[in-house]
Amino acid sequence: MATHSLFLLPGDGIGTEIMVEVEKLIAWTNGEGLTDFSTDSGLAGGAAYDKHGVAITDEDVAKAKAADAVIFGAVGGPKWDNVPYEHRPEAALLRLRKELAVFANLRPAICYPALADASSLRKELVEGLDILIVRELTGGVYFGEPKTITDLGNGQKRAIDTQVYETYEIDRIARVAFDLARTRGGKVHSADKKNVMKSGVLWDEVVKGVGKDYPDVELHHILADNAAMQLVRTPKQFDVMVTDNLFGDILSDVAAMLTGSLGMLPSASLGAPDPVTGKRKAFYEPVHGSAPDIAGKGIANPIAMIASFAMALRYSFNMIELAGKVEGAISAVLSDGLRTGDIAQDNRKTVGTEEMGAAILAKL
Amino acid sequence: MATHSLFLLPGDGIGTEIMVEVEKLIAWTNGEGLTDFSTDSGLAGGAAYDKHGVAITDEDVAKAKAADAVIFGAVGGPKWDNVPYEHRPEAALLRLRKELAVFANLRPAICYPALADASSLRKELVEGLDILIVRELTGGVYFGEPKTITDLGNGQKRAIDTQVYETYEIDRIARVAFDLARTRGGKVHSADKKNVMKSGVLWDEVVKGVGKDYPDVELHHILADNAAMQLVRTPKQFDVMVTDNLFGDILSDVAAMLTGSLGMLPSASLGAPDPVTGKRKAFYEPVHGSAPDIAGKGIANPIAMIASFAMALRYSFNMIELAGKVEGAISAVLSDGLRTGDIAQDNRKTVGTEEMGAAILAKL
Ligand SMILES: CC(C)[C@H](C(=O)O)[C@@H](O)C(=O)O
Ligand SMILES: CC(C)[C@H](C(=O)O)[C@@H](O)C(=O)O
Repeated sequence: MATHSLFLLPGDGIGTEIMVEVEKLIAWTNGEGLTDFSTDSGLAGGAAYDKHGVAITDEDVAKAKAADAVIFGAVGGPKWDNVPYEHRPEAALLRLRKELAVFANLRPAICYPALADASSLRKELVEGLDILIVRELTGGVYFGEPKTITDLGNGQKRAIDTQVYETYEIDRIARVAFDLARTRGGKVHSADKKNVMKSGVLWDEVVKGVGKDYPDVELHHILADNAAMQLVRTPKQFDVMVTDNLFGDILSDVAAMLTGSLGMLPSASLGAPDPVTGKRKAFYEPVHGSAPDIAGKGIANPIAMIASFAMALRYSFNMIELAGKVEGAISAVLSDGLRTGDIAQDNRKTVGTEEMGAAILAKL
Repeated sequence: MATHSLFLLPGDGIGTEIMVEVEKLIAWTNGEGLTDFSTDSGLAGGAAYDKHGVAITDEDVAKAKAADAVIFGAVGGPKWDNVPYEHRPEAALLRLRKELAVFANLRPAICYPALADASSLRKELVEGLDILIVRELTGGVYFGEPKTITDLGNGQKRAIDTQVYETYEIDRIARVAFDLARTRGGKVHSADKKNVMKSGVLWDEVVKGVGKDYPDVELHHILADNAAMQLVRTPKQFDVMVTDNLFGDILSDVAAMLTGSLGMLPSASLGAPDPVTGKRKAFYEPVHGSAPDIAGKGIANPIAMIASFAMALRYSFNMIELAGKVEGAISAVLSDGLRTGDIAQDNRKTVGTEEMGAAILAKL
């Protein structure tokens, strides 16, 4: 078996604690001969800033680029609220996304049956929910120039951000969405604000064009504001939703929150296949943040992190079966009644990070 | 009593039907000597395009500017999906907002007690909900330049939208939010994406500065994506939320949908007080759209439109008591069990637009 390389960036807050559970899982899959992962790890976010004065070092970016997959925890915390803007913890994430060119961010919002009661929505609206948000991740207002604050004098400043999209960027993310829809419910909703934004007009035009190559996939246009509403109203109407970087940020958070399982949701960010090797750069991270309020207490939910690793098995290493087993183990411990504090329920057993990680491993 | 002028723009779809109910109400308040409104009306959206080839004529814009308040229905529909971009129905709305300079969009999200069951959220999370979204309405990515699509050749295009905010624009909307918070729960959440956008950095800086003038109001910063999540998770934590044009578009729709009462929610858009007369330009419209699917059937819910008129009474004419009476009449008919189709419930009586309008009038 070829050695596969993983680069681990636990980051800040609960990121470090939940990454430990993934490391144990890797040790186990390697030990069982199921995988042959070599791992290395680095610093990102506040942890990197404290040590090196930057959100991530050039060395660690280079290692991330060289690895077959990057497994990322979470970054940020109040400790770094006042560091210079270019070194804020989030800068690590943005730089990695851009330099790895992982333009396709896959955010599944799945309602685990055992947790349908945990949603703020009525149970019947979310039970069995399975939405995949496909978010463009390397363009739009996140990276467009100019992006400036100018002092105009007299106490006045002008801030500018620029939303830029080119045809090829929309085309490639649309294809990812259509390809994935084919493996799922066969339906794509494309969300934009074409009634107000020119980037929305182009977005819609390109997505509709790509749609012609997928006559077997149902394509719906939806305005982003209406998409947010409809996610709250009747989320099960959606299968795959494709949208830009900024709308994707918000809509995927809404979708995640609907499931009542925020601490459970993984994400994958994929680049284009290399023309020679066919390999895609890939970046896996939980949807939740670094939760500084509960960091260091050993109570964080490691499931989103472990599920992110499962996504790596599936998308980077084509180990579909093993990925399914890990996901099955997660479902099984939930059905057994184990819960971390964030999803605690009456008549269920609340456990810590380590115990949850161990229980999942035991199921394997 | 001085004559007050209202300019009515029913627009398209259900806009025309629900405006009729407001006209009846105006006739009644005038007849009772409670008001002395003179009214005129014009065309907006598709209706204007069909007649004049533009989304709104210069004459109607001039009338809107001259009036004490504009009462707007809704615009748009599939019929006009393919009209030239600059004449699409929404252009009427955008032009009016900009030319009237109504920068402060007030969107209350109230859960009517009689309708707490209609929310997709669990009843206990929304019962008694009363959030006020204060959305900046004349700046940001809606109006910033450049806003273009450029043909790059080889089938490639580049679309650009520009988010621009200056200090004074943020300052004035923040003051509106703080002033309103003082009359309510005394709490403001300011939502932006300062971790990614320079306009968010400036937004936060200016709002915090304005906050110093309101030491009695609690100010919280929240990232826009987290705001969307928290609205779904525990909406009652919010009192006033102030945010920019684009985030406000999405967050106010989420907040509206939470209430289960989308057809019930009004909005007010206010300009700066005139330095001489103290009068503010003002624009009132329901939060819902033109609902082309049910237009012309006499089944649309007129409540949001009537509640928008009540907001006009309050904010443009300082008729606080009469505004309260109209709002009380709405609550009363709901408590009586009357419902339009959009909020139909078992054991409640479903009525049409006219009957609902008449019932509210009868309560007065
Ligand atoms: C941390 C932040 C920069 C990031 C984003 O806005 O993309 C986060 O919200 C996310 O969704 O991954
Ligand atoms: C119709 C559209 C231009 C408008 C907006 O985006 O502002 C609408 O969604 C709203 O919220 O009033």
